[in-house]
Amino acid sequence: MTFPRIDLRSDTVTQPDDGMRAAMAAAEVGDDVLDHDPTMRELEERAADLLGMAAALWVPSGTMGNLIALMHHLERGDRYLAPRAAHVLEAELGSGAWLAGGMPQPLDWSAGPGRIAPEDLRVHLGGDGPYYTLRTRLLCLENTHNFAGGAVTPPDEHAKLVALAADAGVRVHLDGARIWNAAVALGVPPAALTVGVDTVQVCLSKGLGAPVGSLVCGSAEFVAEARRLRKMLGGGVRQGGVLAAAGLLALDRVPELAADHANAARLADGLAALGWQVAKPETNIVIAAVPDTRHALATLDRLGVAAVAVPGGVRFVTHRDVTTADIDEALARIRADSTRTG
Amino acid sequence: MTFPRIDLRSDTVTQPDDGMRAAMAAAEVGDDVLDHDPTMRELEERAADLLGMAAALWVPSGTMGNLIALMHHLERGDRYLAPRAAHVLEAELGSGAWLAGGMPQPLDWSAGPGRIAPEDLRVHLGGDGPYYTLRTRLLCLENTHNFAGGAVTPPDEHAKLVALAADAGVRVHLDGARIWNAAVALGVPPAALTVGVDTVQVCLSKGLGAPVGSLVCGSAEFVAEARRLRKMLGGGVRQGGVLAAAGLLALDRVPELAADHANAARLADGLAALGWQVAKPETNIVIAAVPDTRHALATLDRLGVAAVAVPGGVRFVTHRDVTTADIDEALARIRADSTRTG
Amino acid sequence: MTFPRIDLRSDTVTQPDDGMRAAMAAAEVGDDVLDHDPTMRELEERAADLLGMAAALWVPSGTMGNLIALMHHLERGDRYLAPRAAHVLEAELGSGAWLAGGMPQPLDWSAGPGRIAPEDLRVHLGGDGPYYTLRTRLLCLENTHNFAGGAVTPPDEHAKLVALAADAGVRVHLDGARIWNAAVALGVPPAALTVGVDTVQVCLSKGLGAPVGSLVCGSAEFVAEARRLRKMLGGGVRQGGVLAAAGLLALDRVPELAADHANAARLADGLAALGWQVAKPETNIVIAAVPDTRHALATLDRLGVAAVAVPGGVRFVTHRDVTTADIDEALARIRADSTRTG
Amino acid sequence: MTFPRIDLRSDTVTQPDDGMRAAMAAAEVGDDVLDHDPTMRELEERAADLLGMAAALWVPSGTMGNLIALMHHLERGDRYLAPRAAHVLEAELGSGAWLAGGMPQPLDWSAGPGRIAPEDLRVHLGGDGPYYTLRTRLLCLENTHNFAGGAVTPPDEHAKLVALAADAGVRVHLDGARIWNAAVALGVPPAALTVGVDTVQVCLSKGLGAPVGSLVCGSAEFVAEARRLRKMLGGGVRQGGVLAAAGLLALDRVPELAADHANAARLADGLAALGWQVAKPETNIVIAAVPDTRHALATLDRLGVAAVAVPGGVRFVTHRDVTTADIDEALARIRADSTRTG
Repeated sequence: MTFPRIDLRSDTVTQPDDGMRAAMAAAEVGDDVLDHDPTMRELEERAADLLGMAAALWVPSGTMGNLIALMHHLERGDRYLAPRAAHVLEAELGSGAWLAGGMPQPLDWSAGPGRIAPEDLRVHLGGDGPYYTLRTRLLCLENTHNFAGGAVTPPDEHAKLVALAADAGVRVHLDGARIWNAAVALGVPPAALTVGVDTVQVCLSKGLGAPVGSLVCGSAEFVAEARRLRKMLGGGVRQGGVLAAAGLLALDRVPELAADHANAARLADGLAALGWQVAKPETNIVIAAVPDTRHALATLDRLGVAAVAVPGGVRFVTHRDVTTADIDEALARIRADSTRTG
Repeated sequence: MTFPRIDLRSDTVTQPDDGMRAAMAAAEVGDDVLDHDPTMRELEERAADLLGMAAALWVPSGTMGNLIALMHHLERGDRYLAPRAAHVLEAELGSGAWLAGGMPQPLDWSAGPGRIAPEDLRVHLGGDGPYYTLRTRLLCLENTHNFAGGAVTPPDEHAKLVALAADAGVRVHLDGARIWNAAVALGVPPAALTVGVDTVQVCLSKGLGAPVGSLVCGSAEFVAEARRLRKMLGGGVRQGGVLAAAGLLALDRVPELAADHANAARLADGLAALGWQVAKPETNIVIAAVPDTRHALATLDRLGVAAVAVPGGVRFVTHRDVTTADIDEALARIRADSTRTG
Repeated sequence: MTFPRIDLRSDTVTQPDDGMRAAMAAAEVGDDVLDHDPTMRELEERAADLLGMAAALWVPSGTMGNLIALMHHLERGDRYLAPRAAHVLEAELGSGAWLAGGMPQPLDWSAGPGRIAPEDLRVHLGGDGPYYTLRTRLLCLENTHNFAGGAVTPPDEHAKLVALAADAGVRVHLDGARIWNAAVALGVPPAALTVGVDTVQVCLSKGLGAPVGSLVCGSAEFVAEARRLRKMLGGGVRQGGVLAAAGLLALDRVPELAADHANAARLADGLAALGWQVAKPETNIVIAAVPDTRHALATLDRLGVAAVAVPGGVRFVTHRDVTTADIDEALARIRADSTRTG
Repeated sequence: MTFPRIDLRSDTVTQPDDGMRAAMAAAEVGDDVLDHDPTMRELEERAADLLGMAAALWVPSGTMGNLIALMHHLERGDRYLAPRAAHVLEAELGSGAWLAGGMPQPLDWSAGPGRIAPEDLRVHLGGDGPYYTLRTRLLCLENTHNFAGGAVTPPDEHAKLVALAADAGVRVHLDGARIWNAAVALGVPPAALTVGVDTVQVCLSKGLGAPVGSLVCGSAEFVAEARRLRKMLGGGVRQGGVLAAAGLLALDRVPELAADHANAARLADGLAALGWQVAKPETNIVIAAVPDTRHALATLDRLGVAAVAVPGGVRFVTHRDVTTADIDEALARIRADSTRTG
């Protein structure tokens, strides 16, 4: 027997909906390299407003958005700080080091999953060393923190970290690929989570469902430099308005993420009821500790439930292409299988 | 009085047509990072076939395609050769040097505009030097050669250069951003122009009219590595099939480039008749030598004719969004203006 | 009142002795870039033998020796592991990241100061991830570990770490700047501490007293490549035999390091007797935890005792230019001062 | 029959003389990383004065001196100009590109061997391009120009080039590895040849005979940064005063270079009289065009005359370890051989 697949690997699998497809087909476009495509410009302005930043630049991926920010902030001989297992440390092939030129320093999750305690940050902001020591130049935060299970940093804690960094003359970049989820979970506007940061990257192609695109935001000066860096990396595109049109609709989808969070909670409760060891999800990511990751993924795959491995466990991500009924169906399959094999 | 603008700055300004827009709206898509998007896969396979290469990879821009190829071929301590004013030398912000790690050696146009004479290449392929000398590792060709005025290298000359490189153990990358124009001008299939190359980059968003996208092609091993390099640079996208759907149609547009070439010849003849110093165009690019580039561009701009500066002159590019009537209109405006001010 | 200064900042302050100076003056030399200087060759061969390695290359500093090894082992997209606060992580300005191209992963001192427990290493050697993840390529060990207070890794523990790395296809570089101290402390030949490593760097200008120079050792193939990398960095010199002559004598000084270790133990005992919180030194480095590093250093400076700051404390290093009487004098000054101010 | 070897490969083969050896043995030294070695400081101050620069830094090689200057001046996206076949282009393994991050532009020898005509330079200093073009940031000069046969740029021509660069906001670095030869040939003080440059590198281990060492000079701010860059590359040394002591004596040897120049002229005249095609040497380098470089070198080698290959010919370099009698002997051997085989 085979099951229709329920894909919980990532919210990146979301497909553009009919509205987005229609918008792409109808988009007003221009040559963004020569003239600034009008729809990309509209998207960039709207995103900057929404995030409380001066300006924004479209980039083809969150990885490029983070990379451009790190290239802007860092020089060889600089150190950057990030919570352990941050996306910029683990999932971007080290470009922050070899390409942006910084020496990373992972920080422990001393304030909770994915979160740095202010007193721990203070230790690492240090003072001026002699000429031959690394200069701590940048703090990278991640909200929500992906590999910590979609963990949320609340605004007051964020504010304390940013203030400490500012006191030490250290800049702050926020990897906000899923900042929308954090804002919805906290019931605050996204701009409440970017207070005091120098740069922030946000994704349109995860829970919000756009096919392609992220934005990296900062001051007008930063965006002018970022445009040049994007060209260097080959991320400048021509009639990108077709993608930006979908991105504009994606920004309207933010409130709908609440449904994903409810589904994640439902999945976690259901798994816990079946005896799984599951942390209570804060947003749309559920991480279950399992003794044998490979075995667990194989079993799930047999049941038509797609998940991915994370260190020590498996990760499920809810998203707009998965319904509450799909969650219940996934749980039913797991329950039936464990009854049969248990 | 103001004129409707005739935009001859570049063929990158071409807009997706209705067929492309409909295809984008209807595209079958998937998460290309996790699964390989089906429409991107179809585009990659079709492009590889058309170019006589084993495999292809979609990239957001020609700059990224060239960069990935250079990153693949070069290591620090390597030298690469390219005809003077090649796009990889002049227009990619030096990433071949600082990011791919190679030391460039520009070669003179000893066989005609944008073209290296085989005997001149031979001198630069040199022998093994001592441990402390650069190793010549790569020859970059460009067909058509943009800043040489869309100059075409014919297949037999290409074959001689490639054979010399092979004899010297030197790899060959072809910047074929406008290979389609070269093939149409020569009346040969594109694959006739890639014989013997290790890698080739082609653009869909210039004369062919797709909004976004290029392809970098080579062996299956190259493409596997290129996929990783694309991820490093942040060029991996999710549901890229929406762009690939337009790209598939773009490949159907190749024969239509003949109209652009005819328009370029018409423009060149018309300018020459007005006393301009114009080289006979080989494809869709017309370069006119002018005594004062800034002044010439300002005059053209006043007349609603958009062109760009190149060293010693101005460049006009014909493309699918410019008609023969537009060319005649542009010439009429210039004629009228020179009569009035002459 | 001023005191004659007792310099315990580092064993790098050691001065060449009369024998070394005479050897430098009399050295047979040649152009090492063109011909291989004969005295450098002799030093390289003798060091390689002593360390049980196939070949060695002279470099101007330990930092360059480590950098060349990392450049050789790492490519962009690779991860390297090192014990927390390793010299390659903290004190080489991040060149392992931005220049050698690797992403560092600091490992906890799970087996004692500066030492990684094999079971902890195993977790980080991981399996093959998908195409977009970092590849763990290199393990960097440090013996003795400087910022862990000259901590020694014994041969059996070293062997376990190396075996785990080999099983995972991960290479091993040993920063053995003070391998001589480790060998003397353990009573084993230096070669007992390099078993199974791919490359090792050793310094002649620390406790052994040569004015300038380190060696990086590995296979003959490695050294051929290292010679090229040294040239790239500007570390190739001409008549380096003048320095190598001193280096040859330095290698004879290894057994004399026992006196430095005895002095370090004497200093630690003396400080402990005065109420300082001092870890028992394993070699020639004494680290004392102090509540206020700046204040402690200022006090010591006033007493003519030079030390340096380390995180949470001050570091004293004994060496051949400091006698047992100097240690007693330093302790006497500290005792007198604490009595007066206590 | 075998001949005693006359080594004309390079002036880098010069050996330290007895005075230098005695000075090394007696040098006052300190830990240059921690404290600034007193003899290195003296050398740096004296060299800076002699060159009319504010400050200087000792480096182990001219390659590192040039590299540090280029790292200081260049950022990714910058272009640097240098006369064709400059040492920074040909003989430093491309580190100016991949490590310092600049895109090189070789300039033709439009004013004579190794020399750029001011009007040709002007063309390449260009204006501000759009955001996606390279910025010309640096002009590298080389005096004397090694691969142009020790060619000298006179002060007035130097002044014109520097003035043009200054007008365009372009910095100037001078590779003055053999600036001493240029000064002696022109009969001017070395400082007359550094007017207006931002940085200059000079070698002590070529014709001046020191065993190891170069200096890179510039403003005090530059030298502070250069010290950090030297540390990054692993070029910081401890008791470098032993080398600096020889370097101080080397600076006294400058006037003696006139003898090398006379010997070079004598060699060139002698070769010309034998029918060789030889350019008249300007300093201590003689380049002879030969039809078959490999054959010519083999013949010379059989005669005990060591030279090296350069493109299209062989290069002889005179130096303090070669006497006029040696030159006559070399010529006699060549004459005898050509008589016998002619």
